[in-house]
Amino acid sequence: MPTYRLVLEYDGTDFVGWQRQAVGTSVQDVLEQALRSVLGGEEVHVVGSGRTDSGVHALGQVASFRCVTERSGDALRMGLNSLLPAGVACREAQRMRDDFHAMWSARRKTYRYRILDQGERSPLRARYVWHMRTRLDVPAMARAAALVVGTHDFTSFRGGGSDAKTSVRTIFSLDVARWEDEVRVSIEGGGFLRHMVRILVGTLVDVGRRRLAPSAIGDILAAKDRARASRTAPAQGLCLVSVWYPEMEEDD
Amino acid sequence: MPTYRLVLEYDGTDFVGWQRQAVGTSVQDVLEQALRSVLGGEEVHVVGSGRTDSGVHALGQVASFRCVTERSGDALRMGLNSLLPAGVACREAQRMRDDFHAMWSARRKTYRYRILDQGERSPLRARYVWHMRTRLDVPAMARAAALVVGTHDFTSFRGGGSDAKTSVRTIFSLDVARWEDEVRVSIEGGGFLRHMVRILVGTLVDVGRRRLAPSAIGDILAAKDRARASRTAPAQGLCLVSVWYPEMEEDD
Repeated sequence: MPTYRLVLEYDGTDFVGWQRQAVGTSVQDVLEQALRSVLGGEEVHVVGSGRTDSGVHALGQVASFRCVTERSGDALRMGLNSLLPAGVACREAQRMRDDFHAMWSARRKTYRYRILDQGERSPLRARYVWHMRTRLDVPAMARAAALVVGTHDFTSFRGGGSDAKTSVRTIFSLDVARWEDEVRVSIEGGGFLRHMVRILVGTLVDVGRRRLAPSAIGDILAAKDRARASRTAPAQGLCLVSVWYPEMEEDD
Repeated sequence: MPTYRLVLEYDGTDFVGWQRQAVGTSVQDVLEQALRSVLGGEEVHVVGSGRTDSGVHALGQVASFRCVTERSGDALRMGLNSLLPAGVACREAQRMRDDFHAMWSARRKTYRYRILDQGERSPLRARYVWHMRTRLDVPAMARAAALVVGTHDFTSFRGGGSDAKTSVRTIFSLDVARWEDEVRVSIEGGGFLRHMVRILVGTLVDVGRRRLAPSAIGDILAAKDRARASRTAPAQGLCLVSVWYPEMEEDD
């Protein structure tokens, strides 16, 4: 059975998240529905590189599925984009090797978090930033961020309801930079626990507000206690930018 | 009676436009409602620098009003932002000279239009860009745009329902530039007729698609015939960036 890979962009505001839920519309729901039409009625099950929460956006979420029906990547992409609602689009579609799996084959993910930390709230960015009135100390946040890079037990940054077997994860880079009136946090890692990026951002923001010293991040990591880290940053500032697979260089 | 000036940012997607309409919610509606609360129940009538159509956004719309109640600019701004819906915010508020009027005192307005002219549609920008599949010829559009700068009779670029006494307007600058995967049109003028910016953009896009020669813009202007210009570009790509007043340097 052919295996396909899709790269998806979506505005998470009006979805209950990537994954199907008992109530509400998920990105997975609208994608599987559109795929069924494109594939002439064949029902497929789509796997994402990971779940994104309700309100979290994606520029480059990756999904895979297997189906009997054969379609070219272009036909899949164009068919999907004519059927998907305005909040979701397919940026790329291609046939992959049969053992490709969007979740198990993923090796690196990059997320970006946007914070508007000066002036009034911005209606044109309300769906995409966390707005706060305190101007953040970006150099302090960057010093704290450097302590998170590497392989650690992230129990202190693990949200409730996570069913991962281990809390050990590897962060390849964690950058904090000012960009006009925003502070942008970019994080690249091998994988992330539930809410991990948002709890890290919430904690870095407390450093930026000078409620925590930059060095406190090391103590919070070492404590392995969720209660020591700060509150989870709101969903709307977060965007899954890209997912990297070793297979991506090989085929199509 | 004190006269106040407000600078407003709004996402036009969910409004019927700036101006009150028989049906639907306008920016003026929600602003006057919030002002009444901030002013302890006093009813005020707000004047905008001009009307923006349904779906058109603003980074710097200017409004003025007179009222008996005295409030500091900071109190007005903060009060409004706690009451206005997420789609509207007040960026500045200040007391002005009594003869200040957001519409009659305006001397220059700057609009920006965003076009996404390559690849698939972008859900994260769907509310803010005009998406098309044809890659535009930006140098040709820039040559056409140069012919529009200056004082002309813009009858050919005047939408139906306009009640202006004259169709003569002055354009100070009209720039077309590529910005990553977008083409951005920036226009500064003394004032604009109804739909004028969107009809100009629609016509420039036909130049960019090579359906019109750049020099055709001069012929269309000279014809003084709306039927000669292209279709009105969709509202969501347009944003009122700023309005300039001579008074702005003087007071507060």
